[in-house]
Amino acid sequence: MTKETLIKQIKEKKSFLCIGLDVDLEKTPPHLLELEDPIFEFNKQIIDATHEVTVAYKPNTAFYEAYGLKGWQALEKTIAYLNEKHPEIFTIADAKRGDIGNTSTRYAKAFFENMNFDALTVAPYMGQDSVEPFLAFKDKFTILLALTSNKGGLDFQGLETQKALVFEEVLQKSQTWKGAEQLMYVVGATKPEYLKEIRKIIPNGFLLVPGIGAQGGDLEAVCKNGLNNEVGLLINSSRGIIYAGSGVDFAAKAYEQALELQQQMEVILKSQKFSGK
Amino acid sequence: MTKETLIKQIKEKKSFLCIGLDVDLEKTPPHLLELEDPIFEFNKQIIDATHEVTVAYKPNTAFYEAYGLKGWQALEKTIAYLNEKHPEIFTIADAKRGDIGNTSTRYAKAFFENMNFDALTVAPYMGQDSVEPFLAFKDKFTILLALTSNKGGLDFQGLETQKALVFEEVLQKSQTWKGAEQLMYVVGATKPEYLKEIRKIIPNGFLLVPGIGAQGGDLEAVCKNGLNNEVGLLINSSRGIIYAGSGVDFAAKAYEQALELQQQMEVILKSQKFSGK
Repeated sequence: MTKETLIKQIKEKKSFLCIGLDVDLEKTPPHLLELEDPIFEFNKQIIDATHEVTVAYKPNTAFYEAYGLKGWQALEKTIAYLNEKHPEIFTIADAKRGDIGNTSTRYAKAFFENMNFDALTVAPYMGQDSVEPFLAFKDKFTILLALTSNKGGLDFQGLETQKALVFEEVLQKSQTWKGAEQLMYVVGATKPEYLKEIRKIIPNGFLLVPGIGAQGGDLEAVCKNGLNNEVGLLINSSRGIIYAGSGVDFAAKAYEQALELQQQMEVILKSQKFSGK
Repeated sequence: MTKETLIKQIKEKKSFLCIGLDVDLEKTPPHLLELEDPIFEFNKQIIDATHEVTVAYKPNTAFYEAYGLKGWQALEKTIAYLNEKHPEIFTIADAKRGDIGNTSTRYAKAFFENMNFDALTVAPYMGQDSVEPFLAFKDKFTILLALTSNKGGLDFQGLETQKALVFEEVLQKSQTWKGAEQLMYVVGATKPEYLKEIRKIIPNGFLLVPGIGAQGGDLEAVCKNGLNNEVGLLINSSRGIIYAGSGVDFAAKAYEQALELQQQMEVILKSQKFSGK
């Protein structure tokens, strides 16, 4: 997918919502557990219910790997379903991979080629030659961890170097890498005060912002400092949406939560005068 | 496995070799490709041939994920085979995982519980609460990326902070985390000059050292600066061993290469007077 296609979808749906598909069988409605593939069935119903108000889905691989082969199979079925039924939706494998060059290429093949995800989250710790192999894939996006939403996020990301903070160096240096136009960045919603500075370094790129909802991030504050002239934000919510209900109506409850966020986003987009563009 | 069991094995085998099981079907002997599970068959024959001269095996998950479900299945079969046939061997999933707390727990369950690996490589970028969930698993080891062997390793790891270099801060801070006694560190063989400083920060821990062989690292230089009074090193070689041959005798060729490294290690251990301990 191209960035233009993503932006077009955002404007049509008046939404920059990303839904995290982090399936936990201990939280899924009991009636699904009797089915052959409860993980995929859960995802399918969430997708069927919410695809009109969200522009992206983001399964986190940890939740699939925890179920071994069956989990991996459910992940493959989920992305195949998305690609077949909703090819307009931006798909993100939240895998936080990264390794030496030839090994990163393997991960890129797994997620970009075999499964055909549009984007993959990648950890920057190993530097340029661990990330560039991902950037070599056409119309695929590498979402580099910059400033994460968790409590320990600043342990190393916030260290002061001679010139800047470590995460700022990640932003700056990565912009000079080959294929940098295919970079996006993870910036946690729990640290909106940093977004202004981040936008000075990355005025044009997209930021994937987790941490709204269960983790306590505030949509208004994030938008105020993070929106740019092509919207430039994907706001992720996982648990707050997919576990809004726990009965047979879980998908309808998820839709309600997603719709509420979409409507807030529509108001924000209107006030920023993006909708007419 | 406990650290004591690992050290005992090292002393018995006079080896601190780790073999990287990074299977690439384009490099495996053609006669294996006709079999039902060529990836597992390749690993099985390598393990059967080399288990007496190595103390650890380290499959890198990228090479398995690249083959989708079949790859994941081959990984599960490989670790099951190791656990059944060679329970004395230290097994490392080289997965470089790491995520927010509850998600890291999922990865820990996948690799420590379901597959029963002894150790997992983890990326430190997300900080304390992304790593501690791994350390909560008894007799399991978290091998934190510190200074990696690749060209871009120093891009961020080598940034100078107010107090030290970033990778030194990773070493120092992580030693204060809960369960720190179950930490080991990845330190690339291509940067042996840093090992002396690293040993000042981590005098007692184990270091997993990739980069010998294909990547150009030197065993003598690494041992000179890296050995401690409980040996404290696991030296990894992947391609240099497993692709030493490409015909029907590939496992025998792999054994020859592994034996050569083991014999060099035996000489080094003798000269350091560990063998009698």
